[in-house]
Amino acid sequence: MKSRSAPVYTSEYRKCLFTSVVAVRHTGMADEALFEFLHMEMVSHVYRDHQSSKGDTDNKDRASRVSVLEGMGFRVGQGLIERLTRDSPCFKDELDIMKFICKDFWTKVFRRQVDNLRTNHQGTYVLQDNKFAMLTQLSNGKQYLDQAPKYLAFSCGVVRGALSNLGLESVVTAEVSVMPSCKFQVVIQKL
Amino acid sequence: MKSRSAPVYTSEYRKCLFTSVVAVRHTGMADEALFEFLHMEMVSHVYRDHQSSKGDTDNKDRASRVSVLEGMGFRVGQGLIERLTRDSPCFKDELDIMKFICKDFWTKVFRRQVDNLRTNHQGTYVLQDNKFAMLTQLSNGKQYLDQAPKYLAFSCGVVRGALSNLGLESVVTAEVSVMPSCKFQVVIQKL
Repeated sequence: MKSRSAPVYTSEYRKCLFTSVVAVRHTGMADEALFEFLHMEMVSHVYRDHQSSKGDTDNKDRASRVSVLEGMGFRVGQGLIERLTRDSPCFKDELDIMKFICKDFWTKVFRRQVDNLRTNHQGTYVLQDNKFAMLTQLSNGKQYLDQAPKYLAFSCGVVRGALSNLGLESVVTAEVSVMPSCKFQVVIQKL
Repeated sequence: MKSRSAPVYTSEYRKCLFTSVVAVRHTGMADEALFEFLHMEMVSHVYRDHQSSKGDTDNKDRASRVSVLEGMGFRVGQGLIERLTRDSPCFKDELDIMKFICKDFWTKVFRRQVDNLRTNHQGTYVLQDNKFAMLTQLSNGKQYLDQAPKYLAFSCGVVRGALSNLGLESVVTAEVSVMPSCKFQVVIQKL
């Protein structure tokens, strides 16, 4: 017998197992967790990897790690937007694309819509998500605020990749002042 | 105007966009894709990374890359099983655990149940999945058969991590003879 607890043969146990399985199916919790856990692992792998090969953590090093994660996000964003828009022939304009990103794309990737979208109508957009999915696994206090940026690089890349495949080259940065809320700034590069 | 196509203001376009959004919502296709794309990126990052730092691809190198991916999978598996079983107090025996892995766990992680579970009743289990999720993005022919193993290391780790958190230490290996079908062998380590 290798199970962690002693065996219980009551119908109570069966019922309880059944309930738990049904609950998981309804909430789909593990699906989301699968992506989030993999994301966490990837961040820690990239950071551990670069640290061990260099031994120090100077600014150049930090930039290269962020750029690795951002690059991965970029390619994932490109792939995702291609699937999500394959039946939508075109968008009206830049703002229309941004609305799609904030609503449908954000819901698919980060499980909720952007709470607030602002623009100066000159190619700069600020997307605020008050409960950003990639930060909800971290503590809400100020304790881990300095750790937040490494969990945002991939997401910035995802947004940039999606926009790029829709014909908009951009620079995407993220900023956290209060966890788990996050502001993304998208600056469209006019060619 | 930065959108890829010329603007179209017809109601036809709106209708079509709406249809596509609804279709995506129903199938949940992008959610799965999100994990799969990230997995692909991670595999290629780990392989590229090790290659560039060494310049060659000998057996030791190959083993270390597989072990990096397996280790990531292990920790993801541990996290996932904890969520999935948090309301199930215990399992009857080892076989009961394996059935849970093949059915509920597999469905959550790899989107379908295991097609066939065999055991010698001495701690060795063979789980066959005829359409393994991590292989369906590769071509079905023989062309990429030699590429398959690197897309299985993470999954082996996921299974080993899940079993480990349920009190079963194991060795998990995977084998592909015809794509995208895959056989996992789980050997429980009797302590």
